Amino acid sequence: RPRKALNEALFFPSEIACVEHIFTPSSPHSCVCFLPHGVETSFSRLLRHILSTSSSLDLCVFAFSNMDLSRAVLALYRKGITIRVLADKDYTAITGSKIGVLHKAGICVRCNANSVHMHHKFALVDGRLLITGSLNWTLQAVQGNMENVLITEEPDLVQPFIKEFHRLWVLNDPA
Amino acid sequence: RPRKALNEALFFPSEIACVEHIFTPSSPHSCVCFLPHGVETSFSRLLRHILSTSSSLDLCVFAFSNMDLSRAVLALYRKGITIRVLADKDYTAITGSKIGVLHKAGICVRCNANSVHMHHKFALVDGRLLITGSLNWTLQAVQGNMENVLITEEPDLVQPFIKEFHRLWVLNDPA
Ligand SMILES: [Zn+2]
Ligand SMILES: [Zn+2]
Repeated sequence: RPRKALNEALFFPSEIACVEHIFTPSSPHSCVCFLPHGVETSFSRLLRHILSTSSSLDLCVFAFSNMDLSRAVLALYRKGITIRVLADKDYTAITGSKIGVLHKAGICVRCNANSVHMHHKFALVDGRLLITGSLNWTLQAVQGNMENVLITEEPDLVQPFIKEFHRLWVLNDPA
Repeated sequence: RPRKALNEALFFPSEIACVEHIFTPSSPHSCVCFLPHGVETSFSRLLRHILSTSSSLDLCVFAFSNMDLSRAVLALYRKGITIRVLADKDYTAITGSKIGVLHKAGICVRCNANSVHMHHKFALVDGRLLITGSLNWTLQAVQGNMENVLITEEPDLVQPFIKEFHRLWVLNDPA
């Protein structure tokens, strides 16, 4: 019998806690920083879902400046995950944006070139899991705002986002 | 056998078309404005879902200035629907915000009073249907931005939003 499709809602601002153990699961108790340890938060749940990627990650995020989320994407890239990033041209130029860092690391990045403002904040994990909501990938959003993120495997929700990502990816081909 | 839960994704910017027939379904061909008629768009789908409310509508939206969405909420209120609106204090003070209009009409409005920025954009229809995404309830978002709205009846997604709305509603009780 097939497993029930995953459906999960996360709310922010997230509690502030150390997320080092999520990046280094082999040595979970090694961190000596001053943040609380061993606490599961909305943000740690979000990070775990992103780091669960095994083959492909498609990102379409207006504002991306969060250090931990950037670290997660770079860690996936180094593992050989196929990553595509659709970003907003104006936000990408802002100090603190991580889009330049991802691009320099070798990740395929496209910016929307037209005047239509790119306001999405979604990710597609392995073409199977949709992560979407009001949350921009910034520290302000994670720690300072009331926000929501919805995580779902429902094909009726995931498939249209896959199609829209493909449409925008082709539309913003700089070639 | 129970009907399959509704799951739908809408993408913006929406095509621009007349929505008069959605407000006056009894005389669908009476409008003489210069917009295209008889076209179903992302925005008309969104309006239809909101106008499908039969008992209660809970709104938690950062920016609410869209005329048609305001008209829809007022029409529901006049029909006797129970409406609660959670709004952002700072955006509510902006010219063009419809929150004051809703409040003056008699609708129950609460603003977040603390420094945490309210960035949600969701609606709960009859405690059964969740409408959420990146889309603020503004004309700019509907016609000018790349945005998404997700509509779902999945209890695993709807219930946490009901709980969060209740938590924020109680938290921002001015009494
Ligand atoms: Zn630590
Ligand atoms: Zn018309």
